[in-house]
Amino acid sequence: MALLSIRMNDSDLKQLSSAFAGSLPLPPALEPHLGAALRHLLENPGALVRPQIVLRMAAAFGLSEAQANDLAIALEYFHTASLVFDDLPCMDDASHRRGASCVHLNFGEAGAILAALALINRAYALLWKAVAPCSREIQLAALAYAERCLGPEGLLNGQSLDLHYSGLPHDPKTTEKIACEKTVSLIELTLVLPAILGGASGGELRLLKRIARFWGLSYQIVDDLKDVLQSTGASGKTAARDFFLDRPNIALAAGVNGAIARLERLIPLGERAVARLVRSRPAVAFLETLRGDLEREAGRVTQAACLIAESGS
Amino acid sequence: MALLSIRMNDSDLKQLSSAFAGSLPLPPALEPHLGAALRHLLENPGALVRPQIVLRMAAAFGLSEAQANDLAIALEYFHTASLVFDDLPCMDDASHRRGASCVHLNFGEAGAILAALALINRAYALLWKAVAPCSREIQLAALAYAERCLGPEGLLNGQSLDLHYSGLPHDPKTTEKIACEKTVSLIELTLVLPAILGGASGGELRLLKRIARFWGLSYQIVDDLKDVLQSTGASGKTAARDFFLDRPNIALAAGVNGAIARLERLIPLGERAVARLVRSRPAVAFLETLRGDLEREAGRVTQAACLIAESGS
Repeated sequence: MALLSIRMNDSDLKQLSSAFAGSLPLPPALEPHLGAALRHLLENPGALVRPQIVLRMAAAFGLSEAQANDLAIALEYFHTASLVFDDLPCMDDASHRRGASCVHLNFGEAGAILAALALINRAYALLWKAVAPCSREIQLAALAYAERCLGPEGLLNGQSLDLHYSGLPHDPKTTEKIACEKTVSLIELTLVLPAILGGASGGELRLLKRIARFWGLSYQIVDDLKDVLQSTGASGKTAARDFFLDRPNIALAAGVNGAIARLERLIPLGERAVARLVRSRPAVAFLETLRGDLEREAGRVTQAACLIAESGS
Repeated sequence: MALLSIRMNDSDLKQLSSAFAGSLPLPPALEPHLGAALRHLLENPGALVRPQIVLRMAAAFGLSEAQANDLAIALEYFHTASLVFDDLPCMDDASHRRGASCVHLNFGEAGAILAALALINRAYALLWKAVAPCSREIQLAALAYAERCLGPEGLLNGQSLDLHYSGLPHDPKTTEKIACEKTVSLIELTLVLPAILGGASGGELRLLKRIARFWGLSYQIVDDLKDVLQSTGASGKTAARDFFLDRPNIALAAGVNGAIARLERLIPLGERAVARLVRSRPAVAFLETLRGDLEREAGRVTQAACLIAESGS
């Protein structure tokens, strides 16, 4: 998601960083290893793209500032916890994350797991606080939706499919399905949850789900193309990580040209959904800037693919 | 907790087992490894002591049947998930749980972690369902209380202290503090949360917290005594697990006689708190049966300690 950027001024971003760091108050008697692992996570916030989107969506759908902040941090805590679990040796066995070495390498696997669980526990509490002022009907809809996106119908299933990809058909359909569950679930939650809380209509929610799907997948395809193109680039030596780890990659499943063609279909579909949504809710016009970023990135990978094709011919 | 038993007839217990198995509906498209790990957990419910207590407490505090069931299963899912994490190689590295080999041995660490996260995700959803019909004030109090007991002020801190016990003073005070956070936190939630939802008075809640603390600790001391006495028993060969793994054990920290003396002080303190609570809320009289079980167990370990002392003199 780092490729997507919501134009936010530096002082707002700084405020968001300190909300990320400060929304899980560390109790004075905290066990020092757990404390160190938690501090490491809270002090390395990443690009904070999701909470920036939540804040803009919350403003567009009339949530209070407190609701917006709680929801933004809750979703970023869920996201951060999911990265900690993904990075464990039994999953992706990663070494670096958000510009630092992974939390499990610094503070042990147990420390990483307990810190991630603390983020999850706090995230559910913040989510509940954000939902509390709403009507009972909206509360239940919001929480059922969060449960679905985060649980074994969404994120958790996507992660499990990702881990067991080697046993699955490596076709575009299966590979896209994994991206939808593993990556798009949280993007969907980011776009849709503020709208549910703000009493959005069924039509608006459907459009937001479509936008999340079209652009979430587009983002994933750009990322997958970068992984593949890097390996066949200038040096020709750097192996495509996804290929050698047998990880789902849409540019491997559909081919580079197939993936670019898919991208060229998905981006305007998202654009059209945004245009329709802006007609009923002009305040979501900020979503158009996401398209601009996506198009720029798509242009770059397409250009890289052409250069590589030419150099090989 | 297996030593504590609430008299429940077989058909009620069977119903509770199937609620435990059936309250996390597995989606049809569930990734098979995650599905197998989840089924393993849902089909091995353990003694279900906590949800039995929740159901009795819920009846005593006037909750609806739906609230009672949701709360009972939510807390048992939290408990089950905490056991899955505790058993991982990076924590206690256990091999057996609830009469079967551990879920991570059967389905891999990643499968175990994702299945435990699915239980947690469902547990929060069930907790919300249970809390939804209450007043906003009660909702917020209940959820803040659950957050505290489950998070880095409760269960998670206890688990981290437990893992890093080797670097801590092995005195009775520290060892009891770990037991309070690691074990008593969930027992407290089991006793207190149904009462919060039922609008219990501040005085009633204070008594319930005292009962949880006195009897939760008593249970832990009995368990710790068993671990120590086993090793110096008949064969004299079986090593005390807690001693050799350097795990917190109150009977090691305070000595066998010190631990028995502590038990003899704690049980009547809990008994007195129950008696006071029964005066304002006669329906909680069922708690007295817990005391009977505790006293029987305490009597057994005391007898074992005497026999060992005599055989050694």
